[in-house]
Amino acid sequence: MPEPWTVVGSRITYQDRWLKVRSDSCRTLAGQVIEPYHVLEYPTWINVVALTPAREIVLAREYRHGAGRVLTGLPSGAMDPADATPEQAARRELREETGYTEGEFFELACDFANPANQDNLVRSFLALDVRKTDAPSLDPGEDIEVIPERFDEFLGRFRRREFSLQVSHAAAVMYAARFLEGHPT
Amino acid sequence: MPEPWTVVGSRITYQDRWLKVRSDSCRTLAGQVIEPYHVLEYPTWINVVALTPAREIVLAREYRHGAGRVLTGLPSGAMDPADATPEQAARRELREETGYTEGEFFELACDFANPANQDNLVRSFLALDVRKTDAPSLDPGEDIEVIPERFDEFLGRFRRREFSLQVSHAAAVMYAARFLEGHPT
Repeated sequence: MPEPWTVVGSRITYQDRWLKVRSDSCRTLAGQVIEPYHVLEYPTWINVVALTPAREIVLAREYRHGAGRVLTGLPSGAMDPADATPEQAARRELREETGYTEGEFFELACDFANPANQDNLVRSFLALDVRKTDAPSLDPGEDIEVIPERFDEFLGRFRRREFSLQVSHAAAVMYAARFLEGHPT
Repeated sequence: MPEPWTVVGSRITYQDRWLKVRSDSCRTLAGQVIEPYHVLEYPTWINVVALTPAREIVLAREYRHGAGRVLTGLPSGAMDPADATPEQAARRELREETGYTEGEFFELACDFANPANQDNLVRSFLALDVRKTDAPSLDPGEDIEVIPERFDEFLGRFRRREFSLQVSHAAAVMYAARFLEGHPT
């Protein structure tokens, strides 16, 4: 029967604005010592499947340096201490990255980002009837091309594996497709 | 139009058996310098939705120290240099973690794990007609309880959000459910 480990020591081995690594010394129930066990500490991550009244999905195309490629994905980001709720974080990220606002937001799921080595959650939102009301407000270094695409066409291309997404964005798209099947318009 | 950055400097700022951090100095097309930009280097990750001839999913219950909880998930792991193909890695992880072997494997998707900050992919497999032939062979410190559950019941509980998964496992489960809808038995 798997049991939680006991943490017998813990220190922050790296921290800057972008990355925080906590390195624990752990002891299993059987007495084995596991060290260093690195946990990457992150805030909750948010992904938004945002649809316009015309059922276009609002996509964000940007350079992703981990993959070394320009990729299409969902508006997404990390919760900020100033966000009162995950939905507020989702609305803020959507507005900042794309300029789309308003709409009705549904939280589709709350999953673990990577529970072996990260402490954070990923929340997937569906936003219906969002509208382009604002200009995007990007961070320095952010360069995001906003692409609306008919959601049914996007879903068809996704299901035919014509492109790859970030796996958490793929999950959000599939959650949204299933939600919409149960809520036809 | 988003463009790749130019890497003007790069060094490994942390490396042990478990974690490798590459810290780059990057320059955008507009001339802005972005540094340090941390990329976590990992091998390809593999997740397996493994079903028995009786349509039970083979689940792995283990302690996940990032989340600090015992969680149920899919058999999963990282590709090893000795794995000739992703499918071989999937078969190896399934056998090592659960003792299930044989079966027919289908690669359902290949997604980016986290393209902003990681360089690796996640490959989702469906394995049909796997059988318990071996004893699991766990690494020191690994303690995995193998739980077979009827896939339709698991999927129902998942869709009712009765538990949370790792987001990449959630994606694999939804890919598998869709594949099986198109391949009824």
